Amino acid sequence: MGNDGIFEGSDDTRKALMKGTLQALREHGYADLTIQQIGEACDKSPSLLYHHYDSKDDLILAFLEQSLDRFEEGSTPQEFDDAREHLQAVFDTVFSDGGPGNDEDDESLMGALLELRMQAAHDQAYREHFTRHDRVMREKLTAIIKDGVEEGTFATDDPDGMAALLTTIFTGIHLQSATSYEGGGVPASDVREQLERLIEERLVVDKV
Amino acid sequence: MGNDGIFEGSDDTRKALMKGTLQALREHGYADLTIQQIGEACDKSPSLLYHHYDSKDDLILAFLEQSLDRFEEGSTPQEFDDAREHLQAVFDTVFSDGGPGNDEDDESLMGALLELRMQAAHDQAYREHFTRHDRVMREKLTAIIKDGVEEGTFATDDPDGMAALLTTIFTGIHLQSATSYEGGGVPASDVREQLERLIEERLVVDKV
Repeated sequence: MGNDGIFEGSDDTRKALMKGTLQALREHGYADLTIQQIGEACDKSPSLLYHHYDSKDDLILAFLEQSLDRFEEGSTPQEFDDAREHLQAVFDTVFSDGGPGNDEDDESLMGALLELRMQAAHDQAYREHFTRHDRVMREKLTAIIKDGVEEGTFATDDPDGMAALLTTIFTGIHLQSATSYEGGGVPASDVREQLERLIEERLVVDKV
Repeated sequence: MGNDGIFEGSDDTRKALMKGTLQALREHGYADLTIQQIGEACDKSPSLLYHHYDSKDDLILAFLEQSLDRFEEGSTPQEFDDAREHLQAVFDTVFSDGGPGNDEDDESLMGALLELRMQAAHDQAYREHFTRHDRVMREKLTAIIKDGVEEGTFATDDPDGMAALLTTIFTGIHLQSATSYEGGGVPASDVREQLERLIEERLVVDKV
């Protein structure tokens, strides 16, 4: 993981801090979150947290980077029958929580992650993280699509362009689901159906 | 326009207030914006603004609703040779400023509009506006696609589903362009190219 070389403490401590940050974000959101609350969530003193991280944002960025590392390294092609199944697994992650690296369907966490993404509009460190986030997502999808082309499941002359489009769709789903009511807006289920059709018609070789 | 019946003042006053709100959002963003600053931007006193609107958010929501009304009523099929050209005009609007109802390519305005959309994560009035925003966008696109099917330019069995997908892509473009660097992330130009291909391959009848 990307932060192993930076963190000066035991691996157990780092794990506890990351887990506590996730829990604190889920419970309190980002705007009003304090180092004190993160400390409570991982049963550590604020002074220990400040020993390892300069600020709340420093800790949260480490958490985001670690989640992204996990997403980047996770879900290898070997775990799936084919690229199509691998792609479905990524869709499942995106549609359940709006972002990579989290296991639970959790609306409050999704809201907090969007708050964090919004920091990127005016904070350079967050902007660098989410630039990497979009690049990692795009590269992951490109790799899966290329795997599919190689194994004969998919056909496309532009895996990277298709990956860019899918990344943008995921981002749109995340923002829409947090900021408009499903009924009146654009239900995520409709978009997923369209996404499946897009994959069928633009990528999958074995059309019915 | 949707607010004509509500606003108790001359049409000139309303127009000046809407124009000033747009200018103030562009100059100051949303977070630190004051009624005083909006007043300065439209050369009116804060007391006049408070006579017509209860709060800064009340005024901004009226501005957003009016912009959306304009988008909803604007760009009729008669203005274009065919549905494809009409769709391109909507794309041009989205790619130049990330949202409907604004004429200029303006990064600071786009950032402010995203800040406003983010209010919808925790504020019911904004959430209702952006729910309507997504619905209006979807309905506008559905109507254009149906026009295309009727005139023989487009072929699809699900205009509404395609419109939902396009709406999500627009939302994703808006969030990505404000929160990740183009180079490392997913450049809007790549996404537009993919969008054009999507339209070509999934909608347009007269394929080469």
